Amino acid sequence: MRQDKKVYVVGTGPGAWEEMTIKAAETLKQCDVIVGYTVYTELLKEKLPDKEYKSTPMRREVDRCLMALEEADNGRKVAMVCSGDSGIYGMAGLMLELQPRFPEVEVEIVAGVTAALSGGACLGAPMTHDSCIISLSDLLTPWETIEKRLLAAAQGDFVIVLYNPSSKKRKEYLKRACQLILTKQKKETVCAIVRNIGRAEESQKLLTLEELTEAETDMFSTVFIGNSQTRIIGNKMVTPRGYRHEEQ
Amino acid sequence: MRQDKKVYVVGTGPGAWEEMTIKAAETLKQCDVIVGYTVYTELLKEKLPDKEYKSTPMRREVDRCLMALEEADNGRKVAMVCSGDSGIYGMAGLMLELQPRFPEVEVEIVAGVTAALSGGACLGAPMTHDSCIISLSDLLTPWETIEKRLLAAAQGDFVIVLYNPSSKKRKEYLKRACQLILTKQKKETVCAIVRNIGRAEESQKLLTLEELTEAETDMFSTVFIGNSQTRIIGNKMVTPRGYRHEEQ
Repeated sequence: MRQDKKVYVVGTGPGAWEEMTIKAAETLKQCDVIVGYTVYTELLKEKLPDKEYKSTPMRREVDRCLMALEEADNGRKVAMVCSGDSGIYGMAGLMLELQPRFPEVEVEIVAGVTAALSGGACLGAPMTHDSCIISLSDLLTPWETIEKRLLAAAQGDFVIVLYNPSSKKRKEYLKRACQLILTKQKKETVCAIVRNIGRAEESQKLLTLEELTEAETDMFSTVFIGNSQTRIIGNKMVTPRGYRHEEQ
Repeated sequence: MRQDKKVYVVGTGPGAWEEMTIKAAETLKQCDVIVGYTVYTELLKEKLPDKEYKSTPMRREVDRCLMALEEADNGRKVAMVCSGDSGIYGMAGLMLELQPRFPEVEVEIVAGVTAALSGGACLGAPMTHDSCIISLSDLLTPWETIEKRLLAAAQGDFVIVLYNPSSKKRKEYLKRACQLILTKQKKETVCAIVRNIGRAEESQKLLTLEELTEAETDMFSTVFIGNSQTRIIGNKMVTPRGYRHEEQ
């Protein structure tokens, strides 16, 4: 039997409506209530003006999930929206942690295109070989754990994508991350910063790992650090998979 | 000026039409020719019967990309389709490597939902903390490099997603990977296998890292290995981000 009380946790992709999956768009259209951080719901209101929108301030993630679960428990169809994918640093995990408080509510996760993929598409093909995603935010993770992962990723010669590379309070974090990676990777390693992926103000910049150490980023930036094989072809960042294609 | 000669490299997501982004679907509708490995183009033919479909046998990736670039160079609008994302082990990299042979042809990458994200959504929220994607295929990568990355990923306590976990010729690879990871992670580590993501025959299985060592997988399987914090909630695989939500 299909359960009636349901919260969908929907990844809406990088920003523009078209970057969402067809399934995500259809799910939102079917829902009565859309819950999410205001920056993301504002973009949806233009397309879906007839929904009820609910939010909480930033960092009130637990309250936001409980709000969604309560609405569903009261019989309304609810979508919790996350930018990018709902699973990559999104609300899917917390929602599933809180769901046991509402035994009648089912949680369904709807995937989306996370910033590593949408930013990668802007840049070319930085992630065509093995890759890691690491968040530099130490709000919920001890900095020592982040450092351990940065070092392991550099040691493994992974392509590294950094989420939350910096904020006003964490200006030095990207620099510290680069310095750690520089102990294992060359200073010429191809890197890039993409800002405002999928929005009108989208911009991108290619730079070396050494240059990245001094670069400025903000909360709308995603940082890409190539592996030892990554190179620039035309103006694109490409990590070859290894196909042989020398011209005869 | 918008260039006329264009190849789009389109990630079509895990399989079902609805799992594609709206942009990917619109791009395919606009194209004259769709090039891709037969398994993926068969699924599209039902929805877009009026396109010309072209393919090459498996492992002829260079020929397939050149075919697409030639068609575009002849003035036709071409899409090269990849399952999942076009950048994650997809054709985006090779296409950009080959593009310089066709200076008039522009390559545009259209992102899609890769198996780590679509499989993650089926399982719950395995990737809510830092994660790695590693392919176990040694067709293009020396096995020593793969081993180095598996060890680094385990050492960094990353959530690990394994693509191409095995094939007829590589039956023992998943076992060897698990044995390496077991040198750093506990045998109780929460793991999962998802098969045929997004298709009618989709199936999933939760198991421990120890059990995964003996598990059977095939080319339609994606393997998830949790980090030290990953746990099962209900029947879902969840890696907590670290939000505090103890009940008062």
